[in-house]
Amino acid sequence: MSNVKRVYFFGNKTAEGNGKMKELLGGKGANLAEMNLIGVPVPPGFTITTEMCTEYYKHKDGGREAVIKLIKPEAERAIAQIEALTGTKFNDNGNPLLMSVRSGSRASMPGMMDTILNLGLNDEAVETIAKKSGNERFAWDSYRRFVQMYGDVVLGMKPESAEHEDPFEVIIDHIKEERGITNDADLTAEDFKEMVRRFKAAVKQQTGNDFPTDSWEQLWGSVMSVFRSWMNDRAILYRKLNNIPEEWGTAVTVQAMVFGNMGDTSATGVCFSRDAATGENLFNGEYLVNAQGEDVVAGIRTPLQITLEGARRWAEAQNVSEEVRGRDFPSLEEVMPEAYGELYATQKHLETYFTDMQDMEFTIQNGKLWMLQTRAAKRTGAAMVKIAVDMLDEKLIDEKTAIMRCEPAKLDELLHPVFDKSAVASAKVLTKGLPASPGAATGQIVFFAEDAEKWAVDKGEKAILVRIETSPEDLKGMHVSAGILTARGGMTSHAAVVARGMGKCCVSGAGDVRIDYRTRTMTIGGVTFKEGDWISLNGSTGEVYEGKVATQAAELSGDFAALMSLTDKYARMKVRTNADTPADARVAIGFGAQGIGLTRTEHMFFEGDRIVSVREMILADDEAGRRLALAKLLPMQRGDFEGIFEAMNGLPVTVRLLDPPLHEFVPHTEKEQKELAAHLGLTYETVRAKVEDLHEVNPMLGHRGCRLGNTYPEITEMQTRAIIEAALNVKKKGIVTHVEIMVPLVGEVKELVYQKRIIDLTAATVFAERGEKVDYMVGTMIEVPRATVTADEIAEVAEFFSFGTNDLTQMTLGFSRDDIGKFLPVYLEKGILEHDPFQILDRVGVGSLMREGVRKGRSARHGLKCGICGEHGGEPSSVEFCDTIDLDYVSCSPFRVPIARLAAAQAVIKRQ
Amino acid sequence: MSNVKRVYFFGNKTAEGNGKMKELLGGKGANLAEMNLIGVPVPPGFTITTEMCTEYYKHKDGGREAVIKLIKPEAERAIAQIEALTGTKFNDNGNPLLMSVRSGSRASMPGMMDTILNLGLNDEAVETIAKKSGNERFAWDSYRRFVQMYGDVVLGMKPESAEHEDPFEVIIDHIKEERGITNDADLTAEDFKEMVRRFKAAVKQQTGNDFPTDSWEQLWGSVMSVFRSWMNDRAILYRKLNNIPEEWGTAVTVQAMVFGNMGDTSATGVCFSRDAATGENLFNGEYLVNAQGEDVVAGIRTPLQITLEGARRWAEAQNVSEEVRGRDFPSLEEVMPEAYGELYATQKHLETYFTDMQDMEFTIQNGKLWMLQTRAAKRTGAAMVKIAVDMLDEKLIDEKTAIMRCEPAKLDELLHPVFDKSAVASAKVLTKGLPASPGAATGQIVFFAEDAEKWAVDKGEKAILVRIETSPEDLKGMHVSAGILTARGGMTSHAAVVARGMGKCCVSGAGDVRIDYRTRTMTIGGVTFKEGDWISLNGSTGEVYEGKVATQAAELSGDFAALMSLTDKYARMKVRTNADTPADARVAIGFGAQGIGLTRTEHMFFEGDRIVSVREMILADDEAGRRLALAKLLPMQRGDFEGIFEAMNGLPVTVRLLDPPLHEFVPHTEKEQKELAAHLGLTYETVRAKVEDLHEVNPMLGHRGCRLGNTYPEITEMQTRAIIEAALNVKKKGIVTHVEIMVPLVGEVKELVYQKRIIDLTAATVFAERGEKVDYMVGTMIEVPRATVTADEIAEVAEFFSFGTNDLTQMTLGFSRDDIGKFLPVYLEKGILEHDPFQILDRVGVGSLMREGVRKGRSARHGLKCGICGEHGGEPSSVEFCDTIDLDYVSCSPFRVPIARLAAAQAVIKRQ
Repeated sequence: MSNVKRVYFFGNKTAEGNGKMKELLGGKGANLAEMNLIGVPVPPGFTITTEMCTEYYKHKDGGREAVIKLIKPEAERAIAQIEALTGTKFNDNGNPLLMSVRSGSRASMPGMMDTILNLGLNDEAVETIAKKSGNERFAWDSYRRFVQMYGDVVLGMKPESAEHEDPFEVIIDHIKEERGITNDADLTAEDFKEMVRRFKAAVKQQTGNDFPTDSWEQLWGSVMSVFRSWMNDRAILYRKLNNIPEEWGTAVTVQAMVFGNMGDTSATGVCFSRDAATGENLFNGEYLVNAQGEDVVAGIRTPLQITLEGARRWAEAQNVSEEVRGRDFPSLEEVMPEAYGELYATQKHLETYFTDMQDMEFTIQNGKLWMLQTRAAKRTGAAMVKIAVDMLDEKLIDEKTAIMRCEPAKLDELLHPVFDKSAVASAKVLTKGLPASPGAATGQIVFFAEDAEKWAVDKGEKAILVRIETSPEDLKGMHVSAGILTARGGMTSHAAVVARGMGKCCVSGAGDVRIDYRTRTMTIGGVTFKEGDWISLNGSTGEVYEGKVATQAAELSGDFAALMSLTDKYARMKVRTNADTPADARVAIGFGAQGIGLTRTEHMFFEGDRIVSVREMILADDEAGRRLALAKLLPMQRGDFEGIFEAMNGLPVTVRLLDPPLHEFVPHTEKEQKELAAHLGLTYETVRAKVEDLHEVNPMLGHRGCRLGNTYPEITEMQTRAIIEAALNVKKKGIVTHVEIMVPLVGEVKELVYQKRIIDLTAATVFAERGEKVDYMVGTMIEVPRATVTADEIAEVAEFFSFGTNDLTQMTLGFSRDDIGKFLPVYLEKGILEHDPFQILDRVGVGSLMREGVRKGRSARHGLKCGICGEHGGEPSSVEFCDTIDLDYVSCSPFRVPIARLAAAQAVIKRQ
Repeated sequence: MSNVKRVYFFGNKTAEGNGKMKELLGGKGANLAEMNLIGVPVPPGFTITTEMCTEYYKHKDGGREAVIKLIKPEAERAIAQIEALTGTKFNDNGNPLLMSVRSGSRASMPGMMDTILNLGLNDEAVETIAKKSGNERFAWDSYRRFVQMYGDVVLGMKPESAEHEDPFEVIIDHIKEERGITNDADLTAEDFKEMVRRFKAAVKQQTGNDFPTDSWEQLWGSVMSVFRSWMNDRAILYRKLNNIPEEWGTAVTVQAMVFGNMGDTSATGVCFSRDAATGENLFNGEYLVNAQGEDVVAGIRTPLQITLEGARRWAEAQNVSEEVRGRDFPSLEEVMPEAYGELYATQKHLETYFTDMQDMEFTIQNGKLWMLQTRAAKRTGAAMVKIAVDMLDEKLIDEKTAIMRCEPAKLDELLHPVFDKSAVASAKVLTKGLPASPGAATGQIVFFAEDAEKWAVDKGEKAILVRIETSPEDLKGMHVSAGILTARGGMTSHAAVVARGMGKCCVSGAGDVRIDYRTRTMTIGGVTFKEGDWISLNGSTGEVYEGKVATQAAELSGDFAALMSLTDKYARMKVRTNADTPADARVAIGFGAQGIGLTRTEHMFFEGDRIVSVREMILADDEAGRRLALAKLLPMQRGDFEGIFEAMNGLPVTVRLLDPPLHEFVPHTEKEQKELAAHLGLTYETVRAKVEDLHEVNPMLGHRGCRLGNTYPEITEMQTRAIIEAALNVKKKGIVTHVEIMVPLVGEVKELVYQKRIIDLTAATVFAERGEKVDYMVGTMIEVPRATVTADEIAEVAEFFSFGTNDLTQMTLGFSRDDIGKFLPVYLEKGILEHDPFQILDRVGVGSLMREGVRKGRSARHGLKCGICGEHGGEPSSVEFCDTIDLDYVSCSPFRVPIARLAAAQAVIKRQ
């Protein structure tokens, strides 16, 4: 490592690094270097590379000495350059160079790691600064801040748990009490002196050592503490949530201090080159006069608007007169027009240079502007789309960049109603579950699907259906509810899947929720809620709020449409939708779906009274009895299909034959069973016995899918007849159908052979009856691992493949998605799994089986049409994977269609 | 096809075919040809090839005309040769050639297809035969037999269902009634004439046609009916049961008749070159004087023993004096010493020539011996072993042939107690279930495991445990029962697997059995049995008998040991056993197991009172509570392992860490839950709630395997400590251990990484405590499909692989073995699946994943030890597959060890 450069100087429009070196210098360090190179005023400093962080962690007992040995010579050289530029001396109490020490990793992790300001102060240096600045209070304020930060962070005096108090805060409180004041602003220079004295005494008492006076000692302590903070709990959690690898490490940037707290010609602030909420092309931000960086975010003083336009908008919203505003809430534009002018030009320069909306920090010291940081700004989904489209119009970026600039998952925000932000801020969070289906919902608690119907349909109230978990029987109740909350089940539980399909807000797997169906109550953290109580669900965060929280509907802008049509220009894969009703189909077409990839015929079985016929069919003693009941279902199914074919108007429609275990369709309570018995003219005992007979130990791996159609061929016959007759009926209205009949759960080609025989025979019979034909294809779901292994055999018979990655994931990993709650959270926490494999496709396991399935399938049938209809079809990284294995299309729930379209376009661009 | 030979003549020591042509000529035709070639006296004839059967079925409306057109010229030539040899003329009433027509496929299917004798007779020819033979009764007896056979078989007059009577039998009954006689033997020539008259009238009436008088017409009718009989229900079923492919087809052998019914110098019989039951090298068989072939088997007359030795043994067993025997039951050896001498020499010749025990049919016509058939004889498992070893000693066959001669599955018969054959014959069969675990059991019905203990342990009675299905809680009860009968569950259900492991007789999935636990009764076909009633189970056939049926213990002969040591000389794979107790381990070692491939630690959890501590651990609120309970389990588990290590005395032992879902260990009845609550000082509600919380929708895919050890590392810690401490303890007694600690259900390498970390850390801690070390390895089950896909990653950490093919089959095919009852029988019947994949390894699906797993695993770790510990490890064809993918060992239940050893040896020989 001897020839490796470990310290990168920057300052005065030169820099040893540059903006591309984010891996080595972190985002902050790289951008500080780049800003220097393009002439933006930045206080001089240097960045210690992320490799030194790695080096630090290589040593079991801490790599302090090793790191110091490696970087000291280079640090000395860099400091000498800073000294030359600033005219000060490091570790010289007569003319001290004060420094800040900040973290900065490859990805932005705001607030997660430690920062030290005002480094270099001690009892002597502070006097020099007081004299030089003519501002004793400023000098001692800076000193006491430094001692506290250093004590808390470097010397580890900040208590780990919030139960214990910070010793420094205790001292501050004591002094304020003694002085009879409540505001920090009222503390005098003398107070700060006393504060520093007591701080240092506390340090001595708690650590056994004097507070370090040597600048080098202070520097090394600070640098190491930044390295250590890479592994603090907050940072670990943040990385986990944001998929940032641990091995990246953090860089450390050491920079000459500039002071926004030197008096009324000094200020500090944060600004954005555009509006982060709406995307409007409007420079904006907040500042404070005579303040240091952290004061703006700390909320002790209310920051002011930077631009006059911003200040006026603010005043209008706050109902403040222009007169009062001008007096009490002036903009930086008004207060320091010159510095503002420079700031405005700089932010414009930075945005144009980096070709993206910037989030910047600055300090004005005695009227002179210094930029401390710039980075691509975080923004809402709406802003993301608007900015991408605007910048494309402005010719700031090209089409591919505009597409890549948008994060597919964030489109979701645009599609569902959302909570009013201020309402959320003041809402009481009861618990947090999984963000199963985005959106915002407020309503009254009900515990049974039929109650939901009563409340919502009969009374016209908004109901939130609260269940331990939902089942297909709850479908109608779910449909009429404003939102769904379940105590069990993951992101792909029944509740979650159905809710997303409906575009309905759902929080699933909220483990703290205890439900007692008998008393119709639920308990969260000791508080009991009863039927009719108001709660609100945030399906985008998983939060459950007490009471009502105001919502606002999402609006789709023209920018959205512009982005979508751009994706079509680049995407190779088509995007279809999973839709079981004409209504779903229409929503999806509105979002640009190019066909239906999955219609679950069984969902229709719960509509209206047809469930009675379904149950009659299931409980029949023999084929004759089943055929009788199926004959009743035929016209209803045919009607369903006609509706869907009409809605899709010529686009391809994949219809899956009956899939779930029959157990799901029969009633399980004594009351319902007795009703059913009466209706069917059977004894209750007979019904009960038959229902019990349907019980399975592992229904997921039981009598379902094509196993139903192969044991009861008459079901396949009826469904085929309904499909084909519907296609012939709509043909009369001039609608061309492209039906793809899909056989589920095939693991052995002969299963498909048998089903295809029935389908072809039935279709031929109908064609003969009607004297007319329509096109149709017969294909299969690939969702059993064995199907991927024998895909070549299956493709000899199947005319298309559709990967059912929900089940394929369940079987390949051996994970029941209904039962993962006991171990998946632990696995994610321990890092045994990086993602929930039901959310993000497991490329290594499930993915390689899919790749193999496509390869083998196409080896047997050239150009075999392959798609995906599992939940993953709407998840961006999974969509990307589907592109890499050359699927022809992805299919997802209607509200995920735009996300999939964007992801599909990005996948192509990434492959280029 | 013009150059293809379709008819193969044989006769007078020449033949166009030979014994190797079984595929083309069927077993019978090929052996008849070969017998001619080696000079054995065989009536001349010809064989029509199996290809003509295929040709016949190629034509949708029956291939009669096509087949006749193809074979007639060749048949004419062959018949001319027969005429020359016999001095008779086909289709010439003045000197008729009479023929037999028999089926014969590649594999023997005794009695499954049709046979026609005495073909060529008509009203004129019969007179000629009467004159020539001087035996009018014989001639007309032959004629009436022919008309009946031909009418039944060729003209289809045999009613399909047993509800309707055979019209010919009705006529025979009428005539006997009119004549006032009951025995066929009392029918005169005149009676037969009248019979023929009425038979022909019946034919005319039922078919509208006269009975054919033309020999050609009779021949073609008979040949086609043999082809048709290939697809009769009996034959289809037999092929299914014996895995004979439909496409093989049958050959037809047409042969000059010889008559055993020409008077007292004629006879017919069946004989075996050795004893088919015991394997003793003793020529034996049965004969009848003045009879035709089918009379010997028809049971109308009691056949006599062929040899004097046989006759004397028979008399002794029947308590018949030598005087009476000599008078009433003479042997062929005594009655026709000359013909007997020729027969004795011939059978010896045939056995020596074919180097296998022969099953032969012969006819003596006027003192002249004719052989009609020879084939390898079916034999019991015991006979199979003895004959193979004897013939090796006799240098008749070499070692490889001796090994290949033994069918591994049949060894099973030798290992379990068996029913006395005569007792079975007279027993009443109540129902039939699956032959889940072989053996014979007689006992009194109990319905609860604890009742089994009461009856068996307290009262010392033999109990048969009857359950809808069993669960691990029933283990003790199963252990003390004589046998187990379940109404649900397949060959790999809990009951079946555990019973086989115990070597205990079990009939599972007897669907006709209705159990009412409340009244402690079961009903089979309307008959109700109560607790205490006697029943008997045949675990080798699945039959359930009423009452007691006498059994006999199996005896293992020296021949068995000789065969086993022979297998060791050839087998490449080692054979280990699945054993959970020292007793199991000892049994397996007795059978030659070379180690333990699977010890299921959880089975130990049910022993004695430790289940209480297990439940305490499961219901604990936190880690501290779990550790407390685990501390109680530690000494018990350690003791278990010590016992096993001692029993295995230096052989390797694979110990699997806790695998099943915790739900299996907790009580589910209110009574038991209340008891547990009282014991643990909890409320009943708490216990109930916790048990409910453990409920899973698909426990197979839920919180189990290493997911337990990764969520509750303290369990892995305790188990590792128990293993390592046990190993150190037995080391003091001079026993070297080779422990292989096996982590179950790994699908992602990090799961194993975490478990291995705990294991290694715990082992290191124990070594440090004791100041002593033992060797151990850490490996994993490969039972999740993802594990096979990522086997290279896993092998970086795992020191060995063991394929858990039970679970791997469940997940690869998506079949829950507890729930396949609803569709697997249909799949097998329809031929969608050829075998139950839980019995015979699915090579195409599961097998290719295994092959890939081995390949990838060894690519990452050279020479990685790979084994199998699923149920398939004891199934011969699966063992063969394991050899082809280069596994190092198979592991199976103790009673299957010999089977696996034999299969492993055969696999090697087959690969050569």
